[in-house]
Parts: sequence; structure tokens; C-alpha cells
Amino acid sequence: MKIGILGLGLIGGSLGYDLRSQGHHVLGVSRRQSTCQKAIALGSVDEASVDMSLLATADVVFICTPIGLIVPQFQQLISHLSAATIITDVASVKTPIVKALAPLWRNFIGGHPMAGTADSGIEAAQRDLFLGRPYVLTPDTTTPTSVISVVEEIVRSLGANIYHCQPEQHDRAVSWISHLPVMVSAALIAACMGETDPDVLQLAQNLASSGFRDTSRVGGGNPELGLMMAQYNRQALLGSLQEYRHNLDELINLIEQENWTVLEAKLQSTQQARPNFVE
Amino acid sequence: MKIGILGLGLIGGSLGYDLRSQGHHVLGVSRRQSTCQKAIALGSVDEASVDMSLLATADVVFICTPIGLIVPQFQQLISHLSAATIITDVASVKTPIVKALAPLWRNFIGGHPMAGTADSGIEAAQRDLFLGRPYVLTPDTTTPTSVISVVEEIVRSLGANIYHCQPEQHDRAVSWISHLPVMVSAALIAACMGETDPDVLQLAQNLASSGFRDTSRVGGGNPELGLMMAQYNRQALLGSLQEYRHNLDELINLIEQENWTVLEAKLQSTQQARPNFVE
Repeated sequence: MKIGILGLGLIGGSLGYDLRSQGHHVLGVSRRQSTCQKAIALGSVDEASVDMSLLATADVVFICTPIGLIVPQFQQLISHLSAATIITDVASVKTPIVKALAPLWRNFIGGHPMAGTADSGIEAAQRDLFLGRPYVLTPDTTTPTSVISVVEEIVRSLGANIYHCQPEQHDRAVSWISHLPVMVSAALIAACMGETDPDVLQLAQNLASSGFRDTSRVGGGNPELGLMMAQYNRQALLGSLQEYRHNLDELINLIEQENWTVLEAKLQSTQQARPNFVE
Repeated sequence: MKIGILGLGLIGGSLGYDLRSQGHHVLGVSRRQSTCQKAIALGSVDEASVDMSLLATADVVFICTPIGLIVPQFQQLISHLSAATIITDVASVKTPIVKALAPLWRNFIGGHPMAGTADSGIEAAQRDLFLGRPYVLTPDTTTPTSVISVVEEIVRSLGANIYHCQPEQHDRAVSWISHLPVMVSAALIAACMGETDPDVLQLAQNLASSGFRDTSRVGGGNPELGLMMAQYNRQALLGSLQEYRHNLDELINLIEQENWTVLEAKLQSTQQARPNFVE
């Protein structure tokens, strides 16, 4: 199959490696000529260009640009394609993307591979990035079954675990387990920075260990990523934040009231619930 | 030197290993005969007994019981000791312990080795547990300098990094970097449990990955530990929680108001601040 990749960063570049090793012919498009050259040199794509017309012959196109560029680049892209071409994207928020793209292209299906590393760019791309990872697809009632099965087959060949859901369900789920943690964790760092006694602040910095390291990790990550989550998944994230604040207030009240029995029961319930999310 | 250890769990047992390997004669006391036998068999202590009078000849005694037992056991302990004996403890909250014990024993100094594992008990004890880890000592103006230097020398022989501060400073510092993270993290798990759509909850559980894993780790830990922090460090923890809530509210407001410039600046500041706490 001829597969196009628009956007040759970590996700696009990694897709290229795996699709080529499956025997597909991979066409890559990047805004930068230097990225095109690197992608070819690294072996992530067969051909690459800054010109979208390279993708005219693709059977399937993966849009792997940053989320803010998807809609404008999609509008350019479709002027080069025949109506039979299947398009999918990899954005980490689905509702606004699907709402914008689905009405414009019959053979479109939204997707989100839940894989990544702390690094970005074509240099960070790696083989088997999607192996054993979740890959969410968000078909709606109008998505042709042939589109679903073609994209599913490709995704399955990456070794990913496929989930189907509505875009809104995806966005609520990732707001709980990915976007809320970023805000919760950022507020932790911000709160500690608020210590007014410099000796205590210095001591806290000296004593911080694995508990602080883990809880603060995603809140100390790439600010653009956190901003993107808030901008594109604002409604779901606000819902999660309100529920979080409610639970935080409950903990504060229990400690204020020295209600140790209920506090212990609450901590027991979180201990019991966590393995349902992660081993 | 003859060194006594009252309480043969993870910390007491690990201290025993290291002190014996430094050539000290280690006397261990546990409430359970079976623990005494294990401690001897494992090589963590030279002698062990359920009877505190075993510690009568010790030059220094480390109290390593759970925090709730320190004061009552201390009162029993001192009836067996000569006034020259140095006593220190390893509790993770210092103000209530130092306030209770310092008036009762001239040669007392509070301490807190910031080391541990997810496991507990004498079976979890290990050599070099304190190597490269912080060890806080909380002498006050009445602590004899000889007491400080003897305990410092022992702590230094464990390979730990020594910090001195007031008990209240210690408790505020650990409330920021150890106790607050537990509550922040527990509230995250509790909030996710609040999702009312079972399909979305199931999807969230399926999609949860390293971000959720790290941010939820300490909130899904031992409930007794979280309860202990709240009970013994209540005032400092409440202060940290209020500051945290303030920062959380600020993030919520910025997202509600779509104030992306300030939100990005805030996330940049947390990204920049985190390396001051952990590498």
C-alpha cells in the first residue's frame, strides 16, 4: 500500500519506520526540507517532500502535525487527493478534530496512538513505538466500514491495542488519566514554590525524593503540551478539575476535622482503585 | 560502641546491618519474640530480646518503632537507662516527638533518615539503605554538643547526608515534598473514580499510562502511612494543602477564562522550578 505521512515528528517518523518494515511504500511530507532529508536518511520514509502533492497517490494518509496545524493543513491536503483516499489523524484530543474534518471528507476516521517519549522530532522517532500501546479510533455512524477496516489493519500491524469509542468519550477518558494529572502535578510544584521561608524551601529541595519526583513529573514537563491539552480539551478538563477539587476539599475537611476513620477509609479506597488503572 | 535499636522493622533492621558492619555491638528489642529471632538469624543484630532491659548497657539507642508508639515506649525505655545514654529517634515527623521527649531526657536528639522502600518489616531491611540519602537531625539549643557529634558520627558512617534544622522547619519541608504529594495524588485517584459513565471509566482505565502511574503512585500507597502524616503533621500539611488549593484554583480560573498566555507562563515556571527539587 502507498501510505502518506503528513508531519515527520516523533509519531509520524515512528509510523514511517514500522510501515516500511511492513512492506508499505511510505511518502512523507514536512514543512522543512531538512526534516525531509533526515527522514529519508534515517530510513523512516521512502520519499519525502515539502510539497503536499507528493501524497496525491497515497491510499491512506496519516496526519501527524501538531494539533493546531491539523485543520489548516487538512484543507490544503485534500485539494491534492482523490476522493478514495483514506485520511486519519493522530491528535491527542478528538472532538474538535473530528467535528472539523469529518464533514469535509467521507473517508476520514479519527485516531490517537497513546505512545510517546519525552523527546520530539524526527530524531526521536523509533521503531515499535506503538507496540503493546493503546490506539484509539473514533469512527462515527457515517464512517464507511471499509475505512475502519483498512485503518484497523494498519494499526494492528503496528502491534497496538485498538479501542473504539466516540470522540467525546475519548476526550473525557484522557482528561482523567492524562490531562488532569498534568494540572494536578503542576499545582504541586507551584504550591511548593510558594514557601516563603528560604531555609524551609532549601530544605524541601534537599529532601525531595521519589515521592515528589513521581508526583511532580508531568507537571514539570513541556508547557506547550499542557497548554495544548487545556486549549483543545478545555471542557472535559474543567469537568475533571471540578471533580478533583471536590475530592481535594473532602480530604482537607477530613484533616481539619481530624476525622481519621473516614480519612483512612478514603485512602484505602484509593489504594484499592489504583490497580484498576495501572498495575 | 554498644548501640541499641528499639523496634526491628525496615529502618531499625537496616540500621542494625550497617552498624554491625562498622564494628558496633548491636542490641535489638522488638515486641515480638519471632522478630527478635529473625533479626539475629539475618545478622541484623548481635543480641535481641523482647525485654527492654537488654538496652541498659547501650551507649546510644535508636528508637525505630512506629511513630504512635515512640512516646509510650520511650517512657518505659528510660527507666532502664543510665543518664549518660544518648537517645535518638527516626520518626518522619519531628515537632510532636521532640516536644514530648526532649524535656524528659537531656541526651536526646531527634532524627529522620529519609530512606525507605515500599516494603516494611525486618525481612525488608537491607544493607546501605541510608547511603547517599538525607538524614535530618533536629538539635535544639539545649542539646549537648557531645550528643550531636556522637550521633552525627554514626549517621555519617551510614553514608547519609546530614542536615540540621528545627523540628518545625523539618515538618514544613516534608509536608511540601512528601506529605502534600500523598494527598494530591490520592485526590487524583478519587476524582477518576468519580466518573459516572462506566464506558468512559473503563476506557480511562485501559488508556492510563506512565503519566497517571507516576502521579497516582503515592496516593495509592499504604493508607496507614498517609493517615500518620495527616495525624502527626496536621498543621503543616493543612498549610501546604491551602497553598496547593490556591494554585489549583488559579489554574482552573486560567482555563475557564482561556487565559492561555498566563497559563503557559505558569506551566513554564513549574517546568523551570522542578529541577531545583529533583534532577
